[in-house]
Amino acid sequence: MTWDAAGVTRTISAAKASGMDFIELALLDPASTDTALGRDLLEKAELPAVFSFGLPQETWASHNPSGTADFLKLAIEKAAGLGSEALSGVTYGGIGERSSFPTTEQELDNVEAALEATVMYAKDHGPAIGIEPVNHYETHLINTTTQVVEMIERVCAPNMFLHLDTYYMNIEETGMGNGIITGRAHLNNLLLSESDRGTSGQGPCDWDEIFATLAAINFKGGLAMESYINMPPEIGYGHSIWRPVAESAEAVIGQGLPFLRGKAQQYGLI
Amino acid sequence: MTWDAAGVTRTISAAKASGMDFIELALLDPASTDTALGRDLLEKAELPAVFSFGLPQETWASHNPSGTADFLKLAIEKAAGLGSEALSGVTYGGIGERSSFPTTEQELDNVEAALEATVMYAKDHGPAIGIEPVNHYETHLINTTTQVVEMIERVCAPNMFLHLDTYYMNIEETGMGNGIITGRAHLNNLLLSESDRGTSGQGPCDWDEIFATLAAINFKGGLAMESYINMPPEIGYGHSIWRPVAESAEAVIGQGLPFLRGKAQQYGLI
Amino acid sequence: MTWDAAGVTRTISAAKASGMDFIELALLDPASTDTALGRDLLEKAELPAVFSFGLPQETWASHNPSGTADFLKLAIEKAAGLGSEALSGVTYGGIGERSSFPTTEQELDNVEAALEATVMYAKDHGPAIGIEPVNHYETHLINTTTQVVEMIERVCAPNMFLHLDTYYMNIEETGMGNGIITGRAHLNNLLLSESDRGTSGQGPCDWDEIFATLAAINFKGGLAMESYINMPPEIGYGHSIWRPVAESAEAVIGQGLPFLRGKAQQYGLI
Amino acid sequence: MTWDAAGVTRTISAAKASGMDFIELALLDPASTDTALGRDLLEKAELPAVFSFGLPQETWASHNPSGTADFLKLAIEKAAGLGSEALSGVTYGGIGERSSFPTTEQELDNVEAALEATVMYAKDHGPAIGIEPVNHYETHLINTTTQVVEMIERVCAPNMFLHLDTYYMNIEETGMGNGIITGRAHLNNLLLSESDRGTSGQGPCDWDEIFATLAAINFKGGLAMESYINMPPEIGYGHSIWRPVAESAEAVIGQGLPFLRGKAQQYGLI
Repeated sequence: MTWDAAGVTRTISAAKASGMDFIELALLDPASTDTALGRDLLEKAELPAVFSFGLPQETWASHNPSGTADFLKLAIEKAAGLGSEALSGVTYGGIGERSSFPTTEQELDNVEAALEATVMYAKDHGPAIGIEPVNHYETHLINTTTQVVEMIERVCAPNMFLHLDTYYMNIEETGMGNGIITGRAHLNNLLLSESDRGTSGQGPCDWDEIFATLAAINFKGGLAMESYINMPPEIGYGHSIWRPVAESAEAVIGQGLPFLRGKAQQYGLI
Repeated sequence: MTWDAAGVTRTISAAKASGMDFIELALLDPASTDTALGRDLLEKAELPAVFSFGLPQETWASHNPSGTADFLKLAIEKAAGLGSEALSGVTYGGIGERSSFPTTEQELDNVEAALEATVMYAKDHGPAIGIEPVNHYETHLINTTTQVVEMIERVCAPNMFLHLDTYYMNIEETGMGNGIITGRAHLNNLLLSESDRGTSGQGPCDWDEIFATLAAINFKGGLAMESYINMPPEIGYGHSIWRPVAESAEAVIGQGLPFLRGKAQQYGLI
Repeated sequence: MTWDAAGVTRTISAAKASGMDFIELALLDPASTDTALGRDLLEKAELPAVFSFGLPQETWASHNPSGTADFLKLAIEKAAGLGSEALSGVTYGGIGERSSFPTTEQELDNVEAALEATVMYAKDHGPAIGIEPVNHYETHLINTTTQVVEMIERVCAPNMFLHLDTYYMNIEETGMGNGIITGRAHLNNLLLSESDRGTSGQGPCDWDEIFATLAAINFKGGLAMESYINMPPEIGYGHSIWRPVAESAEAVIGQGLPFLRGKAQQYGLI
Repeated sequence: MTWDAAGVTRTISAAKASGMDFIELALLDPASTDTALGRDLLEKAELPAVFSFGLPQETWASHNPSGTADFLKLAIEKAAGLGSEALSGVTYGGIGERSSFPTTEQELDNVEAALEATVMYAKDHGPAIGIEPVNHYETHLINTTTQVVEMIERVCAPNMFLHLDTYYMNIEETGMGNGIITGRAHLNNLLLSESDRGTSGQGPCDWDEIFATLAAINFKGGLAMESYINMPPEIGYGHSIWRPVAESAEAVIGQGLPFLRGKAQQYGLI
C-alpha cells in the first residue's frame, strides 16, 4: 500500500514464494514511486506486474478530463519504468464517485476524452490501459462489462483492455458468465474475489460458471486471487470494509488458492 | 411510495390481482399516512401487510436513540391502525449511514436502547418489530444475520424478528443458506430479490440453496419477490440505482414470479 | 414412437403449435417409415428435423460393423427422404450395451470402421451423422465428449458431429461446461434435459453454467428440451424409467420451457 | 474388498492416519469375516465403523424375503462382533436388480417382510439397519429418499435409518437438498461422492446446497467422502465403471477432502 523499500521487497518476495505467475500492485501515489527499486525486484523475481489504482478526487475524468490525463501520464511513465505492461483499475474515476443521478452524456464524453489522451500517450510508453467496472455503490459511471465495452469502442484504441473482478460481477452482471462473454474480445485480466472478498470458494460466487466460461473463450490473460483480508483500515474504510472478511490470511491463502487452482485445472485452464 | 388514495388503491388491487398472499408496503412518512383508507383496502383485499422503511437521518439510532424510539412509536401506531402485524426494515438507521469506522460499542448500545424502547411500546400495540441487515455500502452497523441475531439477543424481546433480503445476503453472507441457518430461530420474512434487483432467476443468486434451506428449517413466514424495476428516481438514487434493473416490469413479474413459485413448489414450500 | 400417420401428424402439429424451431424425432424402425407423409408434414410446418435412434442389438458396431453400416445406410436414405439434415443418437450401438469390461481397441476399431462406411455413404445423401455419448450404465463404449471427439478425429470426416444431452453430461462430465468446451468444434445439437429427465429448471442441472458456456462458444446449433414424461412403458423400461419423471406433461412444458427460454435470453442465445 | 489380515490392517491404519472420524467398510462376505481381528484393530484405532453391502442375487428381498433375513442375521452378528453400530447399504437387494417393470406391491411387501424380520433380530444384537436408495439403473425398487421413508414407515421400527449418497441423489432427487429434507427424520449417514465418483468439488454436485441443507436440519450423523478411484475391476464393472474416475487417489484425497472440510466449516458443521 505504501511504496517503501521494505514493503515492496516483502510483497514481491511473498508473491514469488507463493508460486504466483504475476503480481498486481497498487500504484496509489505515482509521484513518489521509486521505479528503480521495484523494477530490479520484479526482474529478479521474473514476475510480470499489473499496476492498479483509482484517481484522486480532483482528477476524476467525469469533471476534469485533462487532470485525469495528466495523472495517468505520470502513472504510465512510472509503470513503464517498473517494466509493467499494464496499468489498470478505476482509470476513469474513483471509489465513491456518485452524483446522485444517472450518468450523463457529458460525463461519458469527458471520460472518453481523458482516456483518448491517455491511450495515445501510452502507445509510445508501453503499458496497456485497463478499465475496471466497479459496483453501483462505488461509482455511477461504469458498473458493467457492457459499459466498459461501449467505452472501449468509443475510444477505439488497440492498447485498451477490460479488467474484471468477480466480486463486482456478482453484484452487477446478470449471470457470472455474462461479464466474461460480453467482454471476451477485450478481457485481459480477471481478479478472482469471493462475494464477500474473503476466502474464494466459500461464498455465493459461482466459480464453475466463471471457469467454464473462461475456458470456453480460450482465456489466456491474467488470473489473480483477491481478498481484502488484512486491508489497512484507511483503505478498508474507503471500500466500506467494517469487519474482517475471513478468519485469517492463512485461511484465505491456504484454502482459497488451492480451491481456485483446482477449478482452473478442472476446466483445463492450467 | 407516496401514500395517496389513488396510489394505495392501485397498489393493493394489483397485489391482489397478482395472487399475492401478503403485501410489503413502504411507510416512508408515517405522520402523513391515512390509516383509515389503507386499512379498509387491505381488509377488503384480505391481504396481510408488512410495513417497511428506514429512518430519517436525524433519528438514526446510533446517535439519537430516543429520536428513533419516538419515530418508531408513531410508525407502530400507524401500522397498528392499518391492521399490520409487522413493522420492519432498517429500523435502526438509514440507507447511507457510514461513519468511516467500524461499529463502536457506543453505537450498538444506542441501537439496543432505541430498539428496547420500541419493542416495549410495540408489545401493547400489535406489530412485531423486524430488523433487516443491509449491505456494507448502505450502513456500517448491521450487515449480516449474525449481527441481527446478536442485537435480538441483546434486546431479548419476543416481539422482534429477523427480516432478510437475498440481494443483501448475496453480498454479505458466506453462502446463501448461512443467513437463513444462522437466523432460523428469528426469521419471519424473506425478500426474494435477484443479485441485481432485476428478474429473479436470471442472475447469480443461488435459488436452489435458498429454497432448500428454507424447506429444511420448515420456514412458515412470509416470502415476497422484490425488484427495483420502475423505482422512482428519488428512491432509486438513494439506493444507487443508475440504470434499469431489468427490461420491464412485465419481464420481472412474468418471468420472475413463475420461477420463484416453481422453486417453492420444487422444495415443497407451497 | 411408432411411425403411423396419426402419430406423426399429431406430433408435428404439436411441435409447431408449441413454437418450436426444429423437431427431434425417433427413427426406431427405418424400414417401415413412410417418408412421403413425414416429408410433406415437415415441409408444411417448416420444421427442420433431426432423426435420432439407437441400433438394434444384432447390428451394434462393436461386434458387427458392417451390420451397423447397412442399418445406417437405410436410415440415411429415410432421413434424406424426410428432408432431414441430421441423423444422430447412439449411432455406434444401443442402450444397454455393457460388456462388463472396459472398451477394447478392437471394439473402437469396429466402431470407427462402421462410422467410416456410414459417413462416406451419407456424404452423397445429405444428412450429417451425429454421435451422442450416453451414460456408463447404458453403454461402456462412449460416455463422454472427450470420447466422441476422439472417435470423430479417428474417422476424420466433415459430415460428423457431436450430439449432447445434459442429462448424460450431469453424470459423466467433470463440470457441465466441460462437455461443451471439449466438444465445441463439433457440437451441433444439445438436448436440454433435467438430471431426472423431468421438468427443466427443477433439479440439480447447472443451467447457468450450460447456457453461459454455450454463449461463450457462440453456439448456433439446435437446442431442444427433452423429458421422459409420458414415455410409453416399452421405451421407458429400456431406459430404466420406473416412476413418472414429473407431475405431468403440462408441468414439464408449462414450467420447463419458459425456464429454458428465460435462460437462453439471459445469456443472449435468443 | 477382501477381509484378510493384511488388507484390514492397512485400510484401518490408513483411515486413522487420514484423520477420519469413522470408517465405512464393505462386508461382502459375512460368513468368512474374522471379527476378532477387525474388532481389535477398530478398537485400537478408536474408529466407529459402518458396514455396508448389497445382497447376493439369490437372497434379494423382492423374491426371497426369508433368504434376505437369514443373510442379514449373519451379517448383524458379524457387525455386532466387530463392534459396529450400523449395518447398511442395499439391504433390500443388489446392484443390477431390474425387473423391466415398475415395482409391484408384492415386491414391496417382500422387502417389508425381509426388513421386519431383520430389524426385529437386530434389536437384540446392536447394529441399526440402514437403507440406501441407489439409482434407477442399479435397481428398480428404491431410488429416492421418498421411497426409503415410505419403507421405513411401513416397517416402523426405531432401529432403521436412511443412508444417502450424493452420487445417487444427483441423478434421482429434484434438487440435492430435497433428499436430505424429505429424509431428515431418518437420515444417519451421508456419503459425499461427486457426480462422477471422482474428486469431490470438481463436478456438477451442488455442494453448497448439500451442506447448507445439512446445517439447516442440524445434521449430527456420519459424513464420509466416497470415490471409486482404484476400485478393483471385479467391483468396478459391477458398478459399470469403465474408466478411471479421477487422475489418481492422491488427487481425490488431496483435493477432495480439503474441499469437503472447507464446505463443512463454511456451513458450521465442523
